[in-house]
Amino acid sequence: MNWLIIDEKIADWLKEDMNNGDVTTDSLIDEKLVASGEFIAKENGVIAGLEVMKRVFSILDPGIIIDGRVKDGDRVKKGEVFAVIRGKAKNILKGERLALNLLQRMSGTATETAKYVDSLQGFNTKLVDTRKTTPGLRILEKYAVRMGGGHNHRFNLSEAVLIKDNHIKASGSIKKAIEMAEKTIPHTMKIEIEVETLEQLEEAINSGADIILLDNMDCGTMREAVLRNKGRAILEASGNITHTNVRQIAETSVDIISVGAITHSVKALDISLKFT
Amino acid sequence: MNWLIIDEKIADWLKEDMNNGDVTTDSLIDEKLVASGEFIAKENGVIAGLEVMKRVFSILDPGIIIDGRVKDGDRVKKGEVFAVIRGKAKNILKGERLALNLLQRMSGTATETAKYVDSLQGFNTKLVDTRKTTPGLRILEKYAVRMGGGHNHRFNLSEAVLIKDNHIKASGSIKKAIEMAEKTIPHTMKIEIEVETLEQLEEAINSGADIILLDNMDCGTMREAVLRNKGRAILEASGNITHTNVRQIAETSVDIISVGAITHSVKALDISLKFT
Amino acid sequence: MNWLIIDEKIADWLKEDMNNGDVTTDSLIDEKLVASGEFIAKENGVIAGLEVMKRVFSILDPGIIIDGRVKDGDRVKKGEVFAVIRGKAKNILKGERLALNLLQRMSGTATETAKYVDSLQGFNTKLVDTRKTTPGLRILEKYAVRMGGGHNHRFNLSEAVLIKDNHIKASGSIKKAIEMAEKTIPHTMKIEIEVETLEQLEEAINSGADIILLDNMDCGTMREAVLRNKGRAILEASGNITHTNVRQIAETSVDIISVGAITHSVKALDISLKFT
Amino acid sequence: MNWLIIDEKIADWLKEDMNNGDVTTDSLIDEKLVASGEFIAKENGVIAGLEVMKRVFSILDPGIIIDGRVKDGDRVKKGEVFAVIRGKAKNILKGERLALNLLQRMSGTATETAKYVDSLQGFNTKLVDTRKTTPGLRILEKYAVRMGGGHNHRFNLSEAVLIKDNHIKASGSIKKAIEMAEKTIPHTMKIEIEVETLEQLEEAINSGADIILLDNMDCGTMREAVLRNKGRAILEASGNITHTNVRQIAETSVDIISVGAITHSVKALDISLKFT
Amino acid sequence: MNWLIIDEKIADWLKEDMNNGDVTTDSLIDEKLVASGEFIAKENGVIAGLEVMKRVFSILDPGIIIDGRVKDGDRVKKGEVFAVIRGKAKNILKGERLALNLLQRMSGTATETAKYVDSLQGFNTKLVDTRKTTPGLRILEKYAVRMGGGHNHRFNLSEAVLIKDNHIKASGSIKKAIEMAEKTIPHTMKIEIEVETLEQLEEAINSGADIILLDNMDCGTMREAVLRNKGRAILEASGNITHTNVRQIAETSVDIISVGAITHSVKALDISLKFT
Amino acid sequence: MNWLIIDEKIADWLKEDMNNGDVTTDSLIDEKLVASGEFIAKENGVIAGLEVMKRVFSILDPGIIIDGRVKDGDRVKKGEVFAVIRGKAKNILKGERLALNLLQRMSGTATETAKYVDSLQGFNTKLVDTRKTTPGLRILEKYAVRMGGGHNHRFNLSEAVLIKDNHIKASGSIKKAIEMAEKTIPHTMKIEIEVETLEQLEEAINSGADIILLDNMDCGTMREAVLRNKGRAILEASGNITHTNVRQIAETSVDIISVGAITHSVKALDISLKFT
Repeated sequence: MNWLIIDEKIADWLKEDMNNGDVTTDSLIDEKLVASGEFIAKENGVIAGLEVMKRVFSILDPGIIIDGRVKDGDRVKKGEVFAVIRGKAKNILKGERLALNLLQRMSGTATETAKYVDSLQGFNTKLVDTRKTTPGLRILEKYAVRMGGGHNHRFNLSEAVLIKDNHIKASGSIKKAIEMAEKTIPHTMKIEIEVETLEQLEEAINSGADIILLDNMDCGTMREAVLRNKGRAILEASGNITHTNVRQIAETSVDIISVGAITHSVKALDISLKFT
Repeated sequence: MNWLIIDEKIADWLKEDMNNGDVTTDSLIDEKLVASGEFIAKENGVIAGLEVMKRVFSILDPGIIIDGRVKDGDRVKKGEVFAVIRGKAKNILKGERLALNLLQRMSGTATETAKYVDSLQGFNTKLVDTRKTTPGLRILEKYAVRMGGGHNHRFNLSEAVLIKDNHIKASGSIKKAIEMAEKTIPHTMKIEIEVETLEQLEEAINSGADIILLDNMDCGTMREAVLRNKGRAILEASGNITHTNVRQIAETSVDIISVGAITHSVKALDISLKFT
Repeated sequence: MNWLIIDEKIADWLKEDMNNGDVTTDSLIDEKLVASGEFIAKENGVIAGLEVMKRVFSILDPGIIIDGRVKDGDRVKKGEVFAVIRGKAKNILKGERLALNLLQRMSGTATETAKYVDSLQGFNTKLVDTRKTTPGLRILEKYAVRMGGGHNHRFNLSEAVLIKDNHIKASGSIKKAIEMAEKTIPHTMKIEIEVETLEQLEEAINSGADIILLDNMDCGTMREAVLRNKGRAILEASGNITHTNVRQIAETSVDIISVGAITHSVKALDISLKFT
Repeated sequence: MNWLIIDEKIADWLKEDMNNGDVTTDSLIDEKLVASGEFIAKENGVIAGLEVMKRVFSILDPGIIIDGRVKDGDRVKKGEVFAVIRGKAKNILKGERLALNLLQRMSGTATETAKYVDSLQGFNTKLVDTRKTTPGLRILEKYAVRMGGGHNHRFNLSEAVLIKDNHIKASGSIKKAIEMAEKTIPHTMKIEIEVETLEQLEEAINSGADIILLDNMDCGTMREAVLRNKGRAILEASGNITHTNVRQIAETSVDIISVGAITHSVKALDISLKFT
Repeated sequence: MNWLIIDEKIADWLKEDMNNGDVTTDSLIDEKLVASGEFIAKENGVIAGLEVMKRVFSILDPGIIIDGRVKDGDRVKKGEVFAVIRGKAKNILKGERLALNLLQRMSGTATETAKYVDSLQGFNTKLVDTRKTTPGLRILEKYAVRMGGGHNHRFNLSEAVLIKDNHIKASGSIKKAIEMAEKTIPHTMKIEIEVETLEQLEEAINSGADIILLDNMDCGTMREAVLRNKGRAILEASGNITHTNVRQIAETSVDIISVGAITHSVKALDISLKFT
Repeated sequence: MNWLIIDEKIADWLKEDMNNGDVTTDSLIDEKLVASGEFIAKENGVIAGLEVMKRVFSILDPGIIIDGRVKDGDRVKKGEVFAVIRGKAKNILKGERLALNLLQRMSGTATETAKYVDSLQGFNTKLVDTRKTTPGLRILEKYAVRMGGGHNHRFNLSEAVLIKDNHIKASGSIKKAIEMAEKTIPHTMKIEIEVETLEQLEEAINSGADIILLDNMDCGTMREAVLRNKGRAILEASGNITHTNVRQIAETSVDIISVGAITHSVKALDISLKFT
């Protein structure tokens, strides 16, 4: 985690929730009152965001102490107290909502990812995320994916090449697109290209693509793709992946399965902070 | 919408996705190539975020033109082309992901809100959001709630008073908490207080609370609360609201129902941008 | 006080006064030289800004220690040493001007506010500020108003509704304006509306206005307004309030008196920092 | 004026006044409604801030047009319409308060400065400001001083040397302090030093001080200082300057008179924006 | 070029050079005076930074027009006028120094890069940069390297894996380091590892390294490395590359030569802006 | 050094080099591993930037300890260990490149400056820098110049007056330009003017110029300029200064010699950080 970047975000988010002060807490809570509380999982899941949540409170008040009984990536059960907090009541109350908003979302992503990863047990197939993340939270959501046992796809448009259909169309052909990319990109970068048919797949492999994204292919076609590939390129299945079909897709022996839903459509993990 | 604030966020989010450049597009797409595309709903829903999405592209390139065939708050059907785009292919490709990430999330919230609001037809009960929003996106998510036919609860901790159980405990009693708040807060603010029992409700009403949040009460108790209230305070039902029970809750005649899930656990509306 | 916001402002202000370094101090003062000093009131007044002033120095140098013999909101007498400072001479000299600029302005506002509040002794009438604050200093000036015994009006345009004559004109009538506002604003917000005549007052009360701003009314009219209101709306007197007439206005039994001059036309309280 | 810096400040100040939106205007004013208004002086004074005020509105909405009938530095009379505005009512209402807050404060400083400058008519003595400006507004307040006919002292601690009593004490003597400064500062900088007695004055002149600040001297002593100086250093009178004594001080033939009150204790010029 | 990022930098740099205004130009140059000027190369070189330089002026004043007679990447001869400028004299003078500082540095890097690239004519070896760039200018310097005919190495620590000796030591062995990296990094990333001996080279190749950095090897060893590699990994020569030995190194048939000096020790190309 | 400004820059630069994390180090280096290292000069030179380099590491990790065996401005010999570092390996590796990039550039400038200053031994002539600094690094480069024994010219356009040929042309004459400047600038500022001939020199002296920049004059002319000046203005030689001619120029008895190359064309001092 790059705290330089995350601390700045947390400060911005605290200001979103308090452009002036906390009118309720400032009126009612004595400056010196100390409180303790417990973070309780209200359902089973995978925790992600404990470290980030600690930062929320320490930015508000370095005197607040949080003891995690689990660490990011651990599974918690419904009813489990997985962390305790102690410090000035005033500052705990001010940070509570943001801390929970982050912890619940990140744990939601980790939990959803873990479900997919569980389905892949016994396979070498990696489950990866996409760029369909929440604007401003990519660094946290990609971390949560890792905590859920998944892997990350490229971080952003600057980091890796992914040639999509519109790029191919504009370049003339798969071959030309790959050649053009090779000429200009850093030698440290791989080239990934999206294909929809087995013919495109062969052209991509022959043109030296490092990774080939199999866009919305059915399992039969993907099996054939794996055969034709003969281990040359990394094959990534993408599009319409669900908990129902993910294991079936893994059975085609593709190397990678990418899922947008683990970041774009996540149910927050239900977590509460209860004062004790 | 406060564009001063949103434009700044969009610029930050574009930089999150391109800390350097778009290595694929910069290698493959000719500077002058012009492209057209269609925004297509892949499922039924309520659109929110069209104006924001336009800003994404205009910040990248003021020459990109988007014609919306609907406006924020309108319903779209599966397969419907609800907006068209035309401009430099290079810049459309660079902004596409962020634009969709925003549009899909905001439309997801609007669509989910609209489902609740539809269930409330025939009642005066208002459906409102909470502070359980995505950090950094509150201004957009609260806008999306309005586009879905919902209303907004307080924007943040600075804007309105909401006295929760911990505040009450620290103050001594409901009565004392309300008195303390009244003494210091601006005369322009209402006082909302959370209660769990009918006894607390009566104390709150008698102490002059403007709004009373009925925390996780069953429908029977809420009906009784409405009777005892005699229209004095605004009554807000909160906790465990679902599509299944929301209409039932409205039947208790509470004034307001608040739902966290419309912002904390949203399925993105499936939307694609197809080049034509 | 929201230190996240204020610390950022202080850093900006220090950079305004030192875009490079302090050319005098850097040339002449030994890095290790330690100095002590006293903050002395050169006239009677109410102190506000001690905590902010401490932040100025601690941002420059956490080693500087300030002991306040009074606290914000306390009265000081001409000649009184109300705080002492000790630390590296270099850093005290660099922060001195900003610290005094803040302390003197904030104490000026607190002192001026206190004069009005003193005049209201024996009345329930609250003295409140306006949005006529110094750009960038609103959070500090509204704090200073509270330290002087006053109360705050709405913080900004986002926080509360205040319907002025131009809004009424554009809406058609007072009744329509209030109805339109009610339909869209959060249920946590009150509606305040500005009236100039008793007829408007009655329309506003009958339309359900929570607060009514009596704009530039003479005392006779205000007395009549109080009678007609029968305690339904909160009445706020505004416009041409002076030290001479403020008590007279309070005698009309309005609830609130708002004064722009306590923030827009303030004489800095004369304070000096003397090295000892 | 450095618009890069000022535009950024204006954007911050607009966000201070609207962290979300303008809840009143957004509810009541039609997007398309166009309004016109007049800026009217409610008292005699010198206008400063017209250009800045225009920026406030153009940052909100480039379509708003303002025609100034005077320009910064011009005098206006009570009742005079000195500028007219036309544009979307919505955006005029959103920017009105900040625009007036700036225009009134800056015109207040210009007006107050002009009163001092008027008193100096017939003398070569320049009236200058100090660093006792409002944090964050120095660039605007120093501009307003110039618009009132005054001159600027150093902008900040980085720009010029001003050796005060504490610097002298720490250096050992006036002579040593000047020598030390000369050794390290850029050759483009002058050295100003504060003196309290004629003996110190002589030491300062003999040590090569470019400017000598006569701190709180009475007029007799200053006259003697001018005689002894024989035109070698620039002499600056400072401390307890009032409208009553400023002409008398000029009669001592000092070169410069510096006044803190024109920036630290200013009555805002009364200006209103009236819709027509 | 990512203008969102660069425009922000330019604004910061303009503020570095003008924290207040341009005291000379503001005093002497009439607001309306229009000037024309020529950018003249005072020595032979490769131009880079024309687009950036245009942004400097357009951020200051969109009315300034610059016509480039060459484009970035073109060679210019001593005495050649390669661009002309026309606009308000005031604003040209304010932006001149920053524009030249950028243009001269970037052209210096492009020119130096081109010298190396020229030496590699006839070889397939690519000349690449390093992370030894000027803090804050990496995006511009890497662009300048491309304009000089070079290629870019990884942009930063987040974008690609480069395992150095300290990483190897901490991991236990080359094999273990590569295995650990493979387990966690995105599948879109290549693994580069630094080796000092032929034994390490073989271990790296056998462990599946994509790129191998040959650290400070002599030409004989590098020739042997190329033989043993049999085209499996990309080989990158690094360390002590000079204009004298670069061609000799290319003769070893390594794929890549990286040079820090083209960004860390660059002579600015001599360019002047002459008013006409 | 103004750490408020420099710390902010360092944070930005660290983010330039890590927009996400350090993918290599995060994969391979154990959180708890502690490392020690030595900073070694690979060539003779003057060190500048030790304090800045310490900040780089302490911003990343306050637990990293650096012991400098020399201080900024000291000379080091090839092979000399001038500082040692100890702390978490992970964080040392993350900050290493930025720390060295700063230290090498700043030491390069200090070393180059020192060479010029050495040539001036025995003369009173001061060696000064220019505004030809790297955008964003001026504050550090001007510090490095001082560490090399040089002095600083004006920091930026806001700080001091330098009237160049285009300003003179626009004003009508040297005399008029100086008069205009005198009328508006702060009394704390000197006026410097650029001249190309002895006639211009005399006009400048007679008009009261404080400093005269002798632009590209040959040594004979400069000697004559010194004679005619009779000590009235400060004379600054500028243009085409090299190590070869700098002493010769000092022999003309000019007061100041300004050199752009010490900041615009600097060879980084070769420094390495070796883990021990």
